[in-house]
Amino acid sequence: MGDARPRRRTGRRARSLVRHAGSLDVSARTLGSPNGYGHYDTARLTEFHTALDAARDSMYTRAERIPLDQLAQWSADPDSGNIRHASGKFYTIQGVDVSVAGPAGTRQWHQPIINQPEIGILGILVKQFDGVPHYLMQLKAEPGNINGIQVSPTVQATRSNYTRVHGGNPVPYLDYFRERDRHRVIADVRQSEQGSWFLLKRNRNVIIEVAGDVPVLDGFHWLTIQQIHELLQVDDLVNMDARSVLSCLPFLDLMPATMALDRDERVLSLIRSWSGDRRSVHDTADLLSWITDVRTVTDIEVHDAPLNRLPQWRYGADVISHETDRFFDVIGVRVEAGGREVGRWDQPMVAARHVGLAAFVVARFDGVLHVLVGMRVEPGFADVAEIAPTVQCTPANLDHGDIARPPFLDVVLDAPEDRVLYDTMLSEEGGRFFQTRNRYVIVEVDEQLEHPGFRWMTLHQLTELVRHSHYVAMQARTLLACTATLATTRDGAAR
Amino acid sequence: MGDARPRRRTGRRARSLVRHAGSLDVSARTLGSPNGYGHYDTARLTEFHTALDAARDSMYTRAERIPLDQLAQWSADPDSGNIRHASGKFYTIQGVDVSVAGPAGTRQWHQPIINQPEIGILGILVKQFDGVPHYLMQLKAEPGNINGIQVSPTVQATRSNYTRVHGGNPVPYLDYFRERDRHRVIADVRQSEQGSWFLLKRNRNVIIEVAGDVPVLDGFHWLTIQQIHELLQVDDLVNMDARSVLSCLPFLDLMPATMALDRDERVLSLIRSWSGDRRSVHDTADLLSWITDVRTVTDIEVHDAPLNRLPQWRYGADVISHETDRFFDVIGVRVEAGGREVGRWDQPMVAARHVGLAAFVVARFDGVLHVLVGMRVEPGFADVAEIAPTVQCTPANLDHGDIARPPFLDVVLDAPEDRVLYDTMLSEEGGRFFQTRNRYVIVEVDEQLEHPGFRWMTLHQLTELVRHSHYVAMQARTLLACTATLATTRDGAAR
Repeated sequence: MGDARPRRRTGRRARSLVRHAGSLDVSARTLGSPNGYGHYDTARLTEFHTALDAARDSMYTRAERIPLDQLAQWSADPDSGNIRHASGKFYTIQGVDVSVAGPAGTRQWHQPIINQPEIGILGILVKQFDGVPHYLMQLKAEPGNINGIQVSPTVQATRSNYTRVHGGNPVPYLDYFRERDRHRVIADVRQSEQGSWFLLKRNRNVIIEVAGDVPVLDGFHWLTIQQIHELLQVDDLVNMDARSVLSCLPFLDLMPATMALDRDERVLSLIRSWSGDRRSVHDTADLLSWITDVRTVTDIEVHDAPLNRLPQWRYGADVISHETDRFFDVIGVRVEAGGREVGRWDQPMVAARHVGLAAFVVARFDGVLHVLVGMRVEPGFADVAEIAPTVQCTPANLDHGDIARPPFLDVVLDAPEDRVLYDTMLSEEGGRFFQTRNRYVIVEVDEQLEHPGFRWMTLHQLTELVRHSHYVAMQARTLLACTATLATTRDGAAR
Repeated sequence: MGDARPRRRTGRRARSLVRHAGSLDVSARTLGSPNGYGHYDTARLTEFHTALDAARDSMYTRAERIPLDQLAQWSADPDSGNIRHASGKFYTIQGVDVSVAGPAGTRQWHQPIINQPEIGILGILVKQFDGVPHYLMQLKAEPGNINGIQVSPTVQATRSNYTRVHGGNPVPYLDYFRERDRHRVIADVRQSEQGSWFLLKRNRNVIIEVAGDVPVLDGFHWLTIQQIHELLQVDDLVNMDARSVLSCLPFLDLMPATMALDRDERVLSLIRSWSGDRRSVHDTADLLSWITDVRTVTDIEVHDAPLNRLPQWRYGADVISHETDRFFDVIGVRVEAGGREVGRWDQPMVAARHVGLAAFVVARFDGVLHVLVGMRVEPGFADVAEIAPTVQCTPANLDHGDIARPPFLDVVLDAPEDRVLYDTMLSEEGGRFFQTRNRYVIVEVDEQLEHPGFRWMTLHQLTELVRHSHYVAMQARTLLACTATLATTRDGAAR
């Protein structure tokens, strides 16, 4: 892989391509790239998979479930039952009493939640080789991963990691993200994590482009966006943190370079949707007003509640579960890790009872791809509600009939095979969630479906919102990162 | 004043002018307007001032200072001393214990603060007459106003006002802001209010364009943006809420129509700055990264503290004051109001001890006007810190030598007269603040001044941030609304 100086700054390239993409008259000369779309180097990805298989032997975490009351260094507060680490650091499992009042009525419930208010860094380094951006991805084992190792950002550091208050090894590549002035910042934004499981958890999602030599440590790999899109179509391979950071990329960094040469109608609709084509169903001012309205008319109150006395929850010495055996458990895990960071430790984790579903319904209007999004109120969000997928639920939780069937669920579940543009099982973060997965789906429809709680947005409109904190929830960001894979699904010849 | 249908939607006009303004080749034909810049109708403003004088007789609030412990319907909590209304509604005066830790060290202090967590509506109606947007402004008396009546938004409603939980008269024009789908939304965003005096106070700033007939009630006036800019140069005339909403206008709505014909270098630099000219000192990605960094490395903790036991504060039966007689007092006021809303009531208010100063230092780089902004951490902000003016302080508070002299204060205070582009005394909100004023100043320099806590931004970059909540603080929004008045200050012939 060559290490030439970048030929041009991505920012300039993006601007000129936006202009060209508008007229769809992009020449191969300006975009040609040996690693781009249409010239895809499968050999290199085979190499990567070989490295991945090898890593699974040398780097591992073995996680064994143990009773909560036997977790070393963790103990329950005698009064509240909240589970804390002896150092007072890391995170706490506590209870909350939630009430949400809005035009549709009032809901009230109790639940356990992870309290980890500090802001960590999720960072990806980018570097151009022969004019093609490559992303430095890390093979990383996490105790909750269903398959050990997943593809992770260059850096995944909690605040205690990166300030090194506990000593420990320095985090590789962290200095690039601390000394941003010396490099080009592509994105740097605090994003929420699952507001149903985390109280006010946010991470700083950072993408930095570097120009000079970057040493490639063991377990790190430079991948093109095309290669990452391929990996995003493999079950449980690209981890949640990587998806979150990738969703913060400007559209042209998401788009394989020669894709603009394509004349397939769906690919064109995707380029128009990314590039800020004016033919959007709603003005951005209307969309912002919709978001303001939801956040103003909804009152959410979240109060601390003792974990050991949450109504409808069983607080056991082994495990904390809902009395209907739905939603999630709080479990104990004993971890033995090998590889870069060797060690043993215990920790509590959240384990979903069932596989979830997160889906974008998309449609082409006036030749521009649109995504149907909702707003979701979750107790852990910093600002009431965030933009969510068209459908986000755990179908198995609906069986009791006490939870309303979400709008558009049947549109997704009953979609004909040739309208399913993306369908991959992806894991949620393996550091806190134990073998917890969602099926991520993108389904195309032809009708302009309407519902007062939903709006059609272009990818450009979504991408502009992702530049700012607290607009787009994790599951929607994952799907946003996955939309680029639609370019590989041919019109009339779906997977 | 004619009532023709609008000739075109402002949105389209804006887009085409952005394109044209880039090349600065805008023809009079596309922009000509009888009310625009260069054809300014002074007769109509004289009429407005006559109406204002007449209103001062028929509409008034008389505010008399009385001791805090004699406020009817308000009482101090026997334990905390917090001052509450008997109904539990309106707002509370409480104490807070604040600590701010960041790279520059830790500061800790106590202070009284107004707790009013509900989100009200500040709304301005816009309607085009003969193709020229006019804004429906209200003459409104507030007890804290130094001169009785000020120019206010069409609607200024607390949540209890607009949901009418307390009965009372309907708020005129409110339905336009509740039924947004029937009109065009120009802006709709929750904005913070003074975070030093309000705990988490936000108002929804809304601008709605209507097409049909709008009845003009007594005390309401349709004004052009040019007329509003004239009024913004009169001391204590355009109120804080109006300035806040006006700051949310897209730049072309702020710009008098034929201004683009001007060939004055400062006016051109203003148009380029508004219109998103690419020649900015910093990329927007770098500015967003700067904001993310300040909000991540700063830890602010705000805890409730009993108002009657705040260190360094004297809690009197008459008034609450700082022991150094600086900052602000909490006072009692008895109000007698006449006009649209007749009545008598008592209320506690915040009264600043001295006049404050809020200043933008501006400069032209590469022909584009830039503003030097800082980030300010205030206890009442929803998200740690917001963008603040170059200088924001109360000079009289600095005399004790225990508060660091703010950077660039001398640049503002020592500016030669011909570099002072704007200098007007404006009042803060008269419903909560008693005769509390800031001198708002815009000073032009030639050097690219540098300081690690400040960044140069174009007006376009600022205006884009104002579309989203919690980025730009009230004082900076006031100055942003006032920048348009620079167009009336000639190069080399300042006021």
